[in-house]
Amino acid sequence: MNVVTRSEHDLLGDRDVPGDAYWGVHTLRATENFPITGTPISAYPHLIDALAAVKEAAALANEELGLLEAKKAGAIVAACREIRSGKLHDQFVVDVIQGGAGTSTNMNANEVVANRALELLGHAKGQYEYLHPNEDVNLGQSTNDVYPTAVKIATVFAVRGLLKGMSVLQDSFARKAVEFRDVLKMGRTQLQDAVPMTLGQEFSAYAVMMDEDRSRLAEAVELIHEINLGATAIGTGLNAPAGYAESARRHLAEITGLQLVTAANLVEATQDCGAFVQMSGVLKRIAVKLSKSCNDLRLLSSGPRAGLGEINLPPVQAGSSIMPGKVNPVIPEVVNQVAFEVIGNDVAITMAAEAGQLQLNAFEPIILHSLSESITHLRAACLTLAERCVDGITANTEALRRTVENSIGLVTALNPHIGYTAATDIAKEALVTGRGVAELVLEKGLLPAETLADLLRPEVLAGSRQALA
Amino acid sequence: MNVVTRSEHDLLGDRDVPGDAYWGVHTLRATENFPITGTPISAYPHLIDALAAVKEAAALANEELGLLEAKKAGAIVAACREIRSGKLHDQFVVDVIQGGAGTSTNMNANEVVANRALELLGHAKGQYEYLHPNEDVNLGQSTNDVYPTAVKIATVFAVRGLLKGMSVLQDSFARKAVEFRDVLKMGRTQLQDAVPMTLGQEFSAYAVMMDEDRSRLAEAVELIHEINLGATAIGTGLNAPAGYAESARRHLAEITGLQLVTAANLVEATQDCGAFVQMSGVLKRIAVKLSKSCNDLRLLSSGPRAGLGEINLPPVQAGSSIMPGKVNPVIPEVVNQVAFEVIGNDVAITMAAEAGQLQLNAFEPIILHSLSESITHLRAACLTLAERCVDGITANTEALRRTVENSIGLVTALNPHIGYTAATDIAKEALVTGRGVAELVLEKGLLPAETLADLLRPEVLAGSRQALA
Amino acid sequence: MNVVTRSEHDLLGDRDVPGDAYWGVHTLRATENFPITGTPISAYPHLIDALAAVKEAAALANEELGLLEAKKAGAIVAACREIRSGKLHDQFVVDVIQGGAGTSTNMNANEVVANRALELLGHAKGQYEYLHPNEDVNLGQSTNDVYPTAVKIATVFAVRGLLKGMSVLQDSFARKAVEFRDVLKMGRTQLQDAVPMTLGQEFSAYAVMMDEDRSRLAEAVELIHEINLGATAIGTGLNAPAGYAESARRHLAEITGLQLVTAANLVEATQDCGAFVQMSGVLKRIAVKLSKSCNDLRLLSSGPRAGLGEINLPPVQAGSSIMPGKVNPVIPEVVNQVAFEVIGNDVAITMAAEAGQLQLNAFEPIILHSLSESITHLRAACLTLAERCVDGITANTEALRRTVENSIGLVTALNPHIGYTAATDIAKEALVTGRGVAELVLEKGLLPAETLADLLRPEVLAGSRQALA
Amino acid sequence: MNVVTRSEHDLLGDRDVPGDAYWGVHTLRATENFPITGTPISAYPHLIDALAAVKEAAALANEELGLLEAKKAGAIVAACREIRSGKLHDQFVVDVIQGGAGTSTNMNANEVVANRALELLGHAKGQYEYLHPNEDVNLGQSTNDVYPTAVKIATVFAVRGLLKGMSVLQDSFARKAVEFRDVLKMGRTQLQDAVPMTLGQEFSAYAVMMDEDRSRLAEAVELIHEINLGATAIGTGLNAPAGYAESARRHLAEITGLQLVTAANLVEATQDCGAFVQMSGVLKRIAVKLSKSCNDLRLLSSGPRAGLGEINLPPVQAGSSIMPGKVNPVIPEVVNQVAFEVIGNDVAITMAAEAGQLQLNAFEPIILHSLSESITHLRAACLTLAERCVDGITANTEALRRTVENSIGLVTALNPHIGYTAATDIAKEALVTGRGVAELVLEKGLLPAETLADLLRPEVLAGSRQALA
Repeated sequence: MNVVTRSEHDLLGDRDVPGDAYWGVHTLRATENFPITGTPISAYPHLIDALAAVKEAAALANEELGLLEAKKAGAIVAACREIRSGKLHDQFVVDVIQGGAGTSTNMNANEVVANRALELLGHAKGQYEYLHPNEDVNLGQSTNDVYPTAVKIATVFAVRGLLKGMSVLQDSFARKAVEFRDVLKMGRTQLQDAVPMTLGQEFSAYAVMMDEDRSRLAEAVELIHEINLGATAIGTGLNAPAGYAESARRHLAEITGLQLVTAANLVEATQDCGAFVQMSGVLKRIAVKLSKSCNDLRLLSSGPRAGLGEINLPPVQAGSSIMPGKVNPVIPEVVNQVAFEVIGNDVAITMAAEAGQLQLNAFEPIILHSLSESITHLRAACLTLAERCVDGITANTEALRRTVENSIGLVTALNPHIGYTAATDIAKEALVTGRGVAELVLEKGLLPAETLADLLRPEVLAGSRQALA
Repeated sequence: MNVVTRSEHDLLGDRDVPGDAYWGVHTLRATENFPITGTPISAYPHLIDALAAVKEAAALANEELGLLEAKKAGAIVAACREIRSGKLHDQFVVDVIQGGAGTSTNMNANEVVANRALELLGHAKGQYEYLHPNEDVNLGQSTNDVYPTAVKIATVFAVRGLLKGMSVLQDSFARKAVEFRDVLKMGRTQLQDAVPMTLGQEFSAYAVMMDEDRSRLAEAVELIHEINLGATAIGTGLNAPAGYAESARRHLAEITGLQLVTAANLVEATQDCGAFVQMSGVLKRIAVKLSKSCNDLRLLSSGPRAGLGEINLPPVQAGSSIMPGKVNPVIPEVVNQVAFEVIGNDVAITMAAEAGQLQLNAFEPIILHSLSESITHLRAACLTLAERCVDGITANTEALRRTVENSIGLVTALNPHIGYTAATDIAKEALVTGRGVAELVLEKGLLPAETLADLLRPEVLAGSRQALA
Repeated sequence: MNVVTRSEHDLLGDRDVPGDAYWGVHTLRATENFPITGTPISAYPHLIDALAAVKEAAALANEELGLLEAKKAGAIVAACREIRSGKLHDQFVVDVIQGGAGTSTNMNANEVVANRALELLGHAKGQYEYLHPNEDVNLGQSTNDVYPTAVKIATVFAVRGLLKGMSVLQDSFARKAVEFRDVLKMGRTQLQDAVPMTLGQEFSAYAVMMDEDRSRLAEAVELIHEINLGATAIGTGLNAPAGYAESARRHLAEITGLQLVTAANLVEATQDCGAFVQMSGVLKRIAVKLSKSCNDLRLLSSGPRAGLGEINLPPVQAGSSIMPGKVNPVIPEVVNQVAFEVIGNDVAITMAAEAGQLQLNAFEPIILHSLSESITHLRAACLTLAERCVDGITANTEALRRTVENSIGLVTALNPHIGYTAATDIAKEALVTGRGVAELVLEKGLLPAETLADLLRPEVLAGSRQALA
Repeated sequence: MNVVTRSEHDLLGDRDVPGDAYWGVHTLRATENFPITGTPISAYPHLIDALAAVKEAAALANEELGLLEAKKAGAIVAACREIRSGKLHDQFVVDVIQGGAGTSTNMNANEVVANRALELLGHAKGQYEYLHPNEDVNLGQSTNDVYPTAVKIATVFAVRGLLKGMSVLQDSFARKAVEFRDVLKMGRTQLQDAVPMTLGQEFSAYAVMMDEDRSRLAEAVELIHEINLGATAIGTGLNAPAGYAESARRHLAEITGLQLVTAANLVEATQDCGAFVQMSGVLKRIAVKLSKSCNDLRLLSSGPRAGLGEINLPPVQAGSSIMPGKVNPVIPEVVNQVAFEVIGNDVAITMAAEAGQLQLNAFEPIILHSLSESITHLRAACLTLAERCVDGITANTEALRRTVENSIGLVTALNPHIGYTAATDIAKEALVTGRGVAELVLEKGLLPAETLADLLRPEVLAGSRQALA
């Protein structure tokens, strides 16, 4: 119980804040102003760490430039390191969706860092005359450079997690591609029987998709390394002395281990959300591929008796509350849903980016929220799909082979030898009579038996020229 | 060849326009300013007719109120009727996507009507001293009430066409529902075999979907009957005398045969695009259902040998340039694509509506374009789907019945009689051994043969309580 | 600490669950299978209450039909009432985004109800031989009718909250419309000065928008009252005896106080997500209007010195960490962001609805999640906007009046009296010279002073014919 | 008049086609099957040229590999070159939105090339025994490799046009950045007065945005150079002999002048639409930036008297049919609308890509259509914006300077010297009293006059460290 409170002052007057809170009056007002999602920014640990890293880098730069005395700088740095080690995250209480272009998030960070630094200096929380949230912790900064910089760093770390998740899934698909390399099956186009292939080729395609998407994601995350720290309010760097931007960037790069670059045009960088739009576009691309792959897995495993029945997904739970023994493709289904969410988030991010006006985009909080959600849910989806589904997939090899032998699509392979027109006639007759293509070709004497057998060898049909990934 | 030109004057100076053009200098500048899509508004005949109807109604109201002399009014009305009879549409040349909130479209209409009216009065085109595009044809009007009113009327007429197209498709589905009422098949949930149903029930669901969507569309189009004619520039009705709005509405209702209503709050009505957003939302709903139905048709007709093979779509063209005899579900596929387009258009309309500022939405031209495209393409899709696909669908009745007899899902029907746990054991054993459910139940003595037979009667399985639509 | 566990059994084998958990083995597997968002369904209290209501109604119907003994039914009903009174919500632990079409949510509910009912009957948790989650609690039901029915009921209750929030905002706008009814200002189209109006008219438009949107929302929620309880797995009603659907509906209507209707075609109702798509479309419409209104509020309050400066939003927090004294429109900004989120959610819902296949849509969990988020965030946005922004808006009345007197747009009012061409010349001269319109008209002798004064009276200019909402 | 017809035969039977048509029976059926948009593929000249290039390359490869006799190959090549020189485009008549994954487009190309080649060989159209659309023109090909390859080549050429258009716009912005380099003005964040900057910096930001987006577009178009020619039906290369893919690629690269690469995994490449999704994502990014820039231009030019009035857009047409002298920002407005369209198209493309199944995406026609529309409309928008708007923009230099001198935001520059708290007090007093910041600072003796003057020098305020782009 917070019987003890302290009074703090801001532009609007005085307010009591709980005595044990590291946050102060600005944070208090923000929590009252934005009762939207109920999700505090502490739910985004990468963001909290990134904010602390920015505050730490700024303090070091300010100390280096003689703007902040060593004692204050030291306390700020120490407080930031505590935060980055996982402490005090519960003090980041403002709602993730907030007005003010992230000001409340920045203010929350300034206050928590200041109050913890005050304690480290032997003062009580709220004794801002010794170390001030705005004049010291935020020195040389503005929300408009701090917040986007922190969001970018948080995004880079989140994306690393996604890249690993995608890699796990890619490997899972690739192992199945090898396992199923000799499993002959009918390929399909437009859901109609087409020509033969191997199940290994099918899974290989999914592995390659993941691989290509990882490359796109790695490219997109490079753009996120460009920051605007030092831009201050609108990119003119007002109040940030010469050398500050470079020093702060250098310290931040060291702290985070990231190859950060300061944007060449800070006015542009401060208002532009292009890198986030690009990132979201790539996440959407990944979602599209994942969803397509899961659609296929659900289709190929349809059955058990009235479906395609080509593969079996490992059962992970009972499928139905009414239909005994039913096992459903629940893992691909949950991945589909994550994909739909990511695609929806892309629209939200697009609208937020478009809505920026003049020197700032005030809507970065929803961009942060949507991007974070997309990245972390995609990562969870990739891992779940790999570990609870793809790894355990088995093939109905014999049934697949019979389908090839029985298929009309075989006739395509004979096309160059008997001509499209004759092949069409065979196909039509096979369809109507239910008879086999090979049988009909032999009966009509269109090809000698030996030639026919040679043309229909599995390795020829499935395109031996096509190596596995 | 336009060797002869006439000179016209506007705010920016003098310009030569082709002597035989019914449009004038405002239209000329607009064609130069908006070289975007290459599609002139003449490609939207409903819009041209609606514009003429509005101009005619305004002239009659102005005459009635003594603001426009009878001779001028008569000529304007005659010109508008010519346009509504299909003449002069080729004179509507401004690009459909245009800046200016539709001003160029309105100016184009004013000029064509004025010049045709001048001719009817015995004057030459361009002799605006006798009848002026702005001062006479546009009297008491503004683009900001004329354009939205015309777009709404055009939309109402376009929607009527769509309602008819949907009705044709619904009837087609309903006929199949009757035709297939006794075709027993396995129902599926999550692509896994579930419990039995009839193919008639399956098609009945599609018919009901269309029916419900027609109701939603009919409701949404009601909202479109609310117009803001008389609002003039921003809804305050400046320059439109008392009685004008009501008189113009009455004439417009008579001309179009529509039950038009003047909005209660014209300031609101002039800036609000809510009715268009609602309409587009319903079109998106229709698209979702159509796409889902087509996905099903493609899936159910997959094969011919390695697919579900439940139904046959009528072949309408050769399916492949390389695979002889292949027939693809090209009609459902084209419908899917229209659905994707409509869903994309909904996002464009949403953004355009959101971007309105203060007393006007300047982006109604893209709303008109996107709505028109969605409506007319959906109509074409419905008719094509009905006539070139659904009407000719046949069922593989015997194969379907065998799947039911062979299914594990039959066990669900025994659930109330042998319990979920025992039923689960039967299902598992059937899956592993490939044996039939009935056989196993009898073997284990779980039910007497007679009871079992009774429980597995088709009419019981498929739920006789569920009537066809 | 859960040192004590109990063992439960399902299709996949045996698992230990914590001894004090009301959920069981199906729930356990689901929590392992879907580690996606970290948000359990307990975060959706309307859904938990709705699930309990459905289970209670089903038990009463089953008892009524003689399928469930009174003792069991009584215990189930009592357990459900506890849940509906707010108890045991923390036992609903499965992730909101889940595969399986909601099966895990239904199983979670079956298990919690069963175990609590067992306790009430004097048994231990897990003693399913006395009352079974599937055979008793889920009797006559399937996830495929329970889950959509519960989602609909939850949505109805959530929408009621939104309707109230919208009503609060509408009233707030309407009060301002009255307060500002005599504040003359320039109306704008395309951001350019147009013709005069009152600030009251401006706010009246926002009130009317909310009013219309509430009507649309009320219509859309009507559609949500149609349920498919009794459909069981695919709509054929297999295993639900005659009379069950009607009895369950009647009990559910009584329990919830809602006018629920059983769908006429249960096969259609079980696979169709049209009502959700429609609802989301209407939510999107509301988002569009809210965002547009907030864009306007931010624009009208721009300044304090280099902006439009027409109105003042009440300051609710300091605006900047670097710019002293800056106050930002943070409340409209957060509402804009909620709007973008809702629009994005609409796309996710659209894709999920489109992805349904054959007799079921497996993606309803993401629909539930997105709809819930949209509804609750919109409600919070409306209330915050009303209470923390609109209620405290003040007008800069004198500055606004001067702008009208100084405006070139006044000339429009003279249009019918001096003609469009002469008016255009006056406008051009005023623009170039910086002089006033009235002054120029008098100087040129275009109108007598008295007539001019009469034409420029505020009540004429602002359209006295336009009543406030 | 087509009194003379010829009869052609396909899988479905015989049909008469007009005697003078270069297209044949497959095209005829397609025109009947897809009466959707009314827009034939001839409206996409890049696509027609690309199809002809692919057919030419295939013929050369087939000749090289001894599969096609030189005479036939020569005739095919000659026909293709005629098409690429702009002839016969009117023979490409199938609707752009079509089912069949582009089969009808490919068939249309095969037939036109065959019939023209027949003529060149001295035969009549339709005498396919001498040269066959499928067996000769389509030899070694499938729609499934021809169509995506052609779409990619068409896209590359269209994107080149867009890159040029963007470059023109970038240069236009950059020239204004130089022209306005000394025009001091208030920067704004969240539409509130922030701190000073130059108008040159503002335009420089737009130039940099275009520059960055051009880089992203150039990267995305690189991915489009990867083709799957030689994949045939599903990527296994069935019926394409060893060496064919490489030879065809080499010839196609020569013909088009593009650095084409054959995908490493053709099965993946044949089903994957990732490169199109990526391209559309980048187009959406460009649209977002363009729209944001146009929003700013409209806002900065708002007025003439009741707006921000910072810049003047060149008048390009009269703005209003009712308000004399009104000039509207019609060019930025049309660009906004193109942006909304592009963002909507991205959703359509996303859905189409996600809907691909197994070895093929059947929905590439809508992808082609939407991508083409986005690219060409964006190009037109860029050029129009540059030439009809940005090039003619002028600044209201004096008014802008006065706003800076009068601003409260100046106090931010004093922040490091008088402290955030004192600065806040000054700001509040200035706001309430209407007095100037400098005046108040001097009055309170917070800074000596000389220091103050130095701190408020324009080059300091606007951040001389920020170079122009």
